Amino acid sequence: MLNNISLGRHISGQFNHELESIRTHVLAMGGLVEQQLADALKALHKQEEDLAKRVIQDDRKVNAMEVAIDEACTRIIAKRQPTASDLRLVIAIIKTITDLERIGDVAESIAKVALGNFTNKQYNLLASLESLGQNAVRMLHEVLDAFARMDVKAAIDVYQTDDRIDREYEAIIRQLMTYMKEDPDSIPSVMKVMWAARSIERVGDRCQNICEYIIYFVQGKDIRHTNPEDITNFL
Amino acid sequence: MLNNISLGRHISGQFNHELESIRTHVLAMGGLVEQQLADALKALHKQEEDLAKRVIQDDRKVNAMEVAIDEACTRIIAKRQPTASDLRLVIAIIKTITDLERIGDVAESIAKVALGNFTNKQYNLLASLESLGQNAVRMLHEVLDAFARMDVKAAIDVYQTDDRIDREYEAIIRQLMTYMKEDPDSIPSVMKVMWAARSIERVGDRCQNICEYIIYFVQGKDIRHTNPEDITNFL
Repeated sequence: MLNNISLGRHISGQFNHELESIRTHVLAMGGLVEQQLADALKALHKQEEDLAKRVIQDDRKVNAMEVAIDEACTRIIAKRQPTASDLRLVIAIIKTITDLERIGDVAESIAKVALGNFTNKQYNLLASLESLGQNAVRMLHEVLDAFARMDVKAAIDVYQTDDRIDREYEAIIRQLMTYMKEDPDSIPSVMKVMWAARSIERVGDRCQNICEYIIYFVQGKDIRHTNPEDITNFL
Repeated sequence: MLNNISLGRHISGQFNHELESIRTHVLAMGGLVEQQLADALKALHKQEEDLAKRVIQDDRKVNAMEVAIDEACTRIIAKRQPTASDLRLVIAIIKTITDLERIGDVAESIAKVALGNFTNKQYNLLASLESLGQNAVRMLHEVLDAFARMDVKAAIDVYQTDDRIDREYEAIIRQLMTYMKEDPDSIPSVMKVMWAARSIERVGDRCQNICEYIIYFVQGKDIRHTNPEDITNFL
């Protein structure tokens, strides 16, 4: 009996160790994605070609991390057969890394825009993305922080900052449309800025998804498709 | 001993029954999403306001199905502790319904565009989306068919049709940019058509994701981030 208990503890200790290792890898992946996004935006604004190329190249690393973590999650489910909150954590991780990988794709596509040639005028347009980009990077940083601490309160706070990104995005789109109207020759290059703005705005949506997984893990409630105003009810 | 074996069979039979029930729900969800997408496009092209409103309203059903299937998947993992291909099927389902739900969101956003007022000229622009939309609906239909039969060969075939959607999308974007240039006053409404085109193009990417999950389930190999040319190696 004593043997069984200590064996149980041993297995559970080993399990915790494995789970902790997966969590560490998710945070490392998140850190890399945050760096990629910040670098892509820097490459865009400072016209740093080498940096843009590195971001494009490093997207492979993000992809490889996603596949590795995904496999580790499947392995831990098969081997340790977790239930309740342990299982919820693994499921939350499987979903989180999908969104992180897509944010990595956004970084890559912004880096590709950064490799384009811009006239001074177009360069000014790109500057309009700077604050939007910074807010997206900040939101990602904060959601990773909430994930690291599995902090529901922080996740709800981050969730609500997406409103600001949405409003900023809409203002940029209006501004870019006015610009296109005034200078129709600029349309193809303004469109590139539009797609970049759209991609950055989507980072906010992805961060909101991760907030939902944090809340799902901690509270065992699926809050997807809940009205934003009702989200605070989960506190 | 005999008792144990028949109990084992009983549990396994019950498990198969539950797994089969989840699969049936995924196919029902897929059928609803396909209908939503086809209806949204029809509402857009025939300017059917009532149909557009119904699509917007029915997105709730898609969302509810996603949450219910997700919960059933978590329950079956906790209760039945599946391993190997059973576990891969559950993981493939968890991922598939995320993409289906997002295709549902695309249908909703196209339905919202359909509710806008268009001049005859703008209406002609919308017509340029018709073939793209049909191809996206067909791709979704085919990937659901491949999913129903868990047919790797079919999944690979569907995967490769996305190229055609991408080329068609790029031609539409070029055409719309020319249009904006010739008639700058049309920019705001042409932008709506652009976003709709972009959303439809994304349906193709989502269908490709589902192809990858089918291959992952059948072959136990994660083919994400493999070059499209290399995908046929998995046959």
